[in-house]
Amino acid sequence: MKDQAASSERTKVKRLPARGAYDAETIYSILDSGFICHVGFVVDGQPYVIPTGYARIGDNVYIHGSSASRMLRNMAKGVDVCITVTHVDGLVLARSAFHHSVNYRSVVVLGKAELVNDADEKYKALEAFTEHIIPGRWEEIRWPNELELKATSVLILPINEASAKLRTGDPKDDDEDYSMDVWAGVLPLHVSAGEPIPDEKLKAGISLPGHVKNFRPR
Amino acid sequence: MKDQAASSERTKVKRLPARGAYDAETIYSILDSGFICHVGFVVDGQPYVIPTGYARIGDNVYIHGSSASRMLRNMAKGVDVCITVTHVDGLVLARSAFHHSVNYRSVVVLGKAELVNDADEKYKALEAFTEHIIPGRWEEIRWPNELELKATSVLILPINEASAKLRTGDPKDDDEDYSMDVWAGVLPLHVSAGEPIPDEKLKAGISLPGHVKNFRPR
Repeated sequence: MKDQAASSERTKVKRLPARGAYDAETIYSILDSGFICHVGFVVDGQPYVIPTGYARIGDNVYIHGSSASRMLRNMAKGVDVCITVTHVDGLVLARSAFHHSVNYRSVVVLGKAELVNDADEKYKALEAFTEHIIPGRWEEIRWPNELELKATSVLILPINEASAKLRTGDPKDDDEDYSMDVWAGVLPLHVSAGEPIPDEKLKAGISLPGHVKNFRPR
Repeated sequence: MKDQAASSERTKVKRLPARGAYDAETIYSILDSGFICHVGFVVDGQPYVIPTGYARIGDNVYIHGSSASRMLRNMAKGVDVCITVTHVDGLVLARSAFHHSVNYRSVVVLGKAELVNDADEKYKALEAFTEHIIPGRWEEIRWPNELELKATSVLILPINEASAKLRTGDPKDDDEDYSMDVWAGVLPLHVSAGEPIPDEKLKAGISLPGHVKNFRPR
């Protein structure tokens, strides 16, 4: 994605332009930090928003097509989608109700998603899905066989039209409210991993691998 | 919401029916545990998916209309929306790439959202937004004045057509893969709150209130 091509009239952040960011580095880093995306599509005028796995490879986002199977029915030359990834970083506790907010980072990608038919490209996407969730896993597991490859549908969406939106830092209160006897600030939120829970059917003698032990959500 | 009315042909979980759940209690508890929702709407055939604040009051979901201002333009008798709330509870690490998954809880609510015009109802929704984010806050802060109330748009979506989808527990591998020398299990993920960061302009002598100190994300 070229920076100058990253935004369009449709993806411009209209309400609070100060919170908009369009450079590829910002957009890619937000995309790469999520576990799931929310994909939006339209059937008979009704929008649907479904959480699904995804990964970025270069200037493209790939998603699990099966999770959004409703939309595949009418899909000959691609389907209009919106893929959104959001991280909630903190609660913004202002002195007034009006200025309460949330610190967050989000990316919206618009465009036409298409089915990936090429087997090699599909395989690469499946690898990326796994590595996106937990880096280092792919090398240790059984890779998809031909049947599994056929049973999985993968969609590709080029990142041509995208924008990021972020909020960071302190609450912004009205001048006259700063004298109030109200605690204000930010309560940071973060995602962390708990103790790994071994599969009940885990074969004896298998120890926890480094890519799980050392994993930290981004 | 009556349980039997909670699902419709449009919200039935088609791909993996075992993961679908439609009772009101499940749906409400998932809705009540999120910080933001993703709202989907359509403009000129293009779906948009935008993260925004929300709250449930009884059988209705309210959202901040301003975050989705694009959709308000054409909005006379309501606008078709999809509101989705998703919690990622863990990474499901199987022996095969194919069976990798995520433990999650999500709710999809479909319907026509309408602008809330009644001032009292709007006020109640603003209170619910704040209390939804961090219970106990409303009593301590400055409430919205008339100007702020006018500057905020609130949308209501009745929970008539909704479904929940969940995945919990161990990976499900193919029988022949259980003998592989691969660690398998679940890596739980949870959202936690860090140390509160006081506003740089916080008035001297104000201590951290209990509703912040004792807050635990649900």
